Amino acid sequence: MVAAPNWLNALSLALALPENKSQRLYQLATVDSKGLPHARTVGYVDFLEPEDSPNLPILLGMTDIRTPKVGQMRSQPYVEICWWLSGSREQFRIAGPLQVVASPNVDVDVVPKGEGTLAIDKLTRQGFDWETKRQETFERIPGPMKATWCKPQPASVIGSYDEGKTWPQTLAPAGEEQSEEEKQNRETALKNFALTLIEPVEVDWVQVGTNPHRRTKFTRNGEEWSEEILVP
Amino acid sequence: MVAAPNWLNALSLALALPENKSQRLYQLATVDSKGLPHARTVGYVDFLEPEDSPNLPILLGMTDIRTPKVGQMRSQPYVEICWWLSGSREQFRIAGPLQVVASPNVDVDVVPKGEGTLAIDKLTRQGFDWETKRQETFERIPGPMKATWCKPQPASVIGSYDEGKTWPQTLAPAGEEQSEEEKQNRETALKNFALTLIEPVEVDWVQVGTNPHRRTKFTRNGEEWSEEILVP
Repeated sequence: MVAAPNWLNALSLALALPENKSQRLYQLATVDSKGLPHARTVGYVDFLEPEDSPNLPILLGMTDIRTPKVGQMRSQPYVEICWWLSGSREQFRIAGPLQVVASPNVDVDVVPKGEGTLAIDKLTRQGFDWETKRQETFERIPGPMKATWCKPQPASVIGSYDEGKTWPQTLAPAGEEQSEEEKQNRETALKNFALTLIEPVEVDWVQVGTNPHRRTKFTRNGEEWSEEILVP
Repeated sequence: MVAAPNWLNALSLALALPENKSQRLYQLATVDSKGLPHARTVGYVDFLEPEDSPNLPILLGMTDIRTPKVGQMRSQPYVEICWWLSGSREQFRIAGPLQVVASPNVDVDVVPKGEGTLAIDKLTRQGFDWETKRQETFERIPGPMKATWCKPQPASVIGSYDEGKTWPQTLAPAGEEQSEEEKQNRETALKNFALTLIEPVEVDWVQVGTNPHRRTKFTRNGEEWSEEILVP
């Protein structure tokens, strides 16, 4: 009988605490082609797992394929996230290979090298429909946020902050577009919208709200998770 | 007349906002010797600058020389921090070469390669006393936190969480030690305590509390800061 890893149960419990109610952002660290580190704040989306494999969770995120971080993911398809939950004073660091699921109409080649993507491979073998998942995930985003996927190339230089006022401010839900322009904006956004799949293989959980502080390291070997207590 | 860079003024203003009162933690991203990214939450200490050079601020931090991140800093002495201020909904990403200032009694060779450490070099040329700064910074830490620098090797494996109860729980202020053991604990902690100096050369400031969102990129060229408005 396989079960969800203990770190995922701990994270789910932490996220359910009222004092962590607003803690749905974490930092994503990547390495660029020069070997330099980068980190930025991104929003939590969900975990998914292959059927009958709660032991193999995948951390689902979203991005714009035009952002610099996707270029970094291409050169190093292995990332670490750092999730500090200030309410309960605990930190989850989750590391592993990363894959980007982009529109079938674009060429974004972010695929992990080597082994380590047991969960992603299993889901794919089970016939998981990544494109439907991508479109469904996009559909759940509020309209104004959806519109950010059809602004000009992220991180490109512009003349003034006010240029942002000329970009689409919101997108209508699918099928409710009122004009050709709205339909085109939707198409553009969906072309740029991608899922990120992080397959956790190492998790470092630090609790500084306890006395003494606690630190627990989880490592995936094959499909099994092992657990060690570390000096915080 | 040189002045502090605009990003530092913006950060100081943000830190002074009542809604950001508790936002004194940020994430520090490093790269390990295999080229993989890591990130963890660390505490803000201070900025310092060479005399007459407010344009060349240095972000001061602290660490234990025995932590895995110091090994990572050794293999890649260039880091990025990501500071999300949830009160005002803005993010500062600060990147640059890093130097570690350890006890004169230990050998920790984290020195940036190449150019880019104008500020650190200038301070050193001005006769800045790094060892005094290190000891003063340590002295300002509360006793229980000071004691964390004399626990066993961070990230090493232990048998149970309870082992933490057997480690020193606090350190007395300098000169107020009551026993040989307290004196030794202090010496151990001071041997492990180090400053980290990040010399910012790129800063990416994103404001999502404004409408439209704003993104500003600051780049240091020589001693001058240039500024560009980017698509968020």
